[in-house]
Amino acid sequence: MSNTLFGGIEAGGTKFICAVAHQPPELINTTVIETTTPQETLAKVCDFFFPYVEEGSLQSIGLASFGPIDIDVRSPTYGYITSTPKPNWQNTNILGLLKQSLGLPFAFHHDVSGSAIGESRWGAARGKDPSLYLTIGTGIGGGYIINGKPLSGLTILEMGHIHIPHQWEIDPFEGICPYHRDCFEGLASGYAIEHRLGQRGETLPDDHPFWEIEAEHIAHALVNYIFTLSPRKIVVGGGVMQRSFLFQMVRNKVRALINNYLQFDILLGKMEEYIVPPQLGKYSGVLGAIAMAMDISSTSSKIEASQSFVS
Amino acid sequence: MSNTLFGGIEAGGTKFICAVAHQPPELINTTVIETTTPQETLAKVCDFFFPYVEEGSLQSIGLASFGPIDIDVRSPTYGYITSTPKPNWQNTNILGLLKQSLGLPFAFHHDVSGSAIGESRWGAARGKDPSLYLTIGTGIGGGYIINGKPLSGLTILEMGHIHIPHQWEIDPFEGICPYHRDCFEGLASGYAIEHRLGQRGETLPDDHPFWEIEAEHIAHALVNYIFTLSPRKIVVGGGVMQRSFLFQMVRNKVRALINNYLQFDILLGKMEEYIVPPQLGKYSGVLGAIAMAMDISSTSSKIEASQSFVS
Repeated sequence: MSNTLFGGIEAGGTKFICAVAHQPPELINTTVIETTTPQETLAKVCDFFFPYVEEGSLQSIGLASFGPIDIDVRSPTYGYITSTPKPNWQNTNILGLLKQSLGLPFAFHHDVSGSAIGESRWGAARGKDPSLYLTIGTGIGGGYIINGKPLSGLTILEMGHIHIPHQWEIDPFEGICPYHRDCFEGLASGYAIEHRLGQRGETLPDDHPFWEIEAEHIAHALVNYIFTLSPRKIVVGGGVMQRSFLFQMVRNKVRALINNYLQFDILLGKMEEYIVPPQLGKYSGVLGAIAMAMDISSTSSKIEASQSFVS
Repeated sequence: MSNTLFGGIEAGGTKFICAVAHQPPELINTTVIETTTPQETLAKVCDFFFPYVEEGSLQSIGLASFGPIDIDVRSPTYGYITSTPKPNWQNTNILGLLKQSLGLPFAFHHDVSGSAIGESRWGAARGKDPSLYLTIGTGIGGGYIINGKPLSGLTILEMGHIHIPHQWEIDPFEGICPYHRDCFEGLASGYAIEHRLGQRGETLPDDHPFWEIEAEHIAHALVNYIFTLSPRKIVVGGGVMQRSFLFQMVRNKVRALINNYLQFDILLGKMEEYIVPPQLGKYSGVLGAIAMAMDISSTSSKIEASQSFVS
């Protein structure tokens, strides 16, 4: 067994995926833990990692968590899951609890950022920086990777909540976002689909006229992101995008909306290489968390190296 | 006279502003040159800088140019003004011509990025990174500064062209963007105002009902940028924003649109510190160009230092 291992945790609202890998990355162990109470769930997470901690092989762990989370290192609640509606998890110091139990360096970010890092480092956006990762599932979230790192500023990105044109005559649904009603997430998330049609998207046939509306909303959002973030690759995952015919519908609408304003081959002719599905499947998040762990480990090595150079 | 000077050029469609400064920055000479033909205009620009080149004091020059420009260093037309509608300037190798005549290292970016850098380094967004600079004038453009540098990816940002909700019953104007009709720029730029009302915005009274519509469009765009870019400060300049009462209207609408989704003091109570006018006035662009010049100069010093260390 390699003696230099890195851990990853994708902490989701329904399940936690944990993994241990060595470089390049190769996953040598994974587990899936149901999300129940913080006490029970985090104890099982620790049980998974303890053997590697004890043998001294685990260098660091990346934690990509569901949110809302506090990623401001100067904040007293840094590392917390804050105002989530999920029972038992409000104001949970998830980072602090894991760090204390496992005694290792941790990297911490949002779960969507984890997937964005994973796809950027080893998946569909490899070699394309900056890149955008968007998940369209129950909710809608995005992560933007620039110089290998997830963009954050005042807070993490909340790009699912942008407002896009809403053509009421074509789409009379009023939207279900409790804060913004007909924002992108309020109109186009899996939850919105279920509310507007009274059935889950999975049960709709491919030729249902609703998919044109869904593709139009997604295309409007992607065009806004393209004009604002100028990514070199857009990876779109999440349950709704399992309907793979949506990709070509969205690409055609994106091309029509940009309308030759940007003259790049990738936008004019090769959009099937520009807007793409994820490549890492269910492991994009946990692989991103492992990349985060590798990054802090190499940073601390560099700091140690530079310190030993000085002394 | 200091023997370490930096040059800046804000190359605009109607005028070029040139300046020479020494650190911290202190402008020691500036000039304004009317934009006529490339030959005539660039000759005058060179005349301004020649004395400093000859005395050996000028280290480098930053060039912040009107566009569209090619900023991809791997492209054969890097440094060109490309498909501009401005007569005589299509496919002008502005960077190459200036570099050849003056024989100095140049930094090159978009004019809006220049203003964004200027306000981030020494103006209204000082100490707030990442920050957003938006100009709402004849057109609408934006620059986003992260880690002190302007964000670019596939190309420069084109955030004036995002689509925002268009409430036709309140605002029946169809928009004037030749590519996207009722995108943000198509609805809210100075050019759009003149077209929709048949008079320039400067001539409208403060209590004209149109300003509510204008503020609503600006607020929608800002909220989309906030959710997508999460800036720590938003600086809004340009001719339209000379109507300073617009700031408070926009702030109130931004707060209403976010609707407590983001719980940050700056968004809840102190928005007058979050969405602000520029502080550097007509020099924000050229000061940004000077910052660009200082940055490449310190980079090349570091490279030289590291090379001499190796040898």
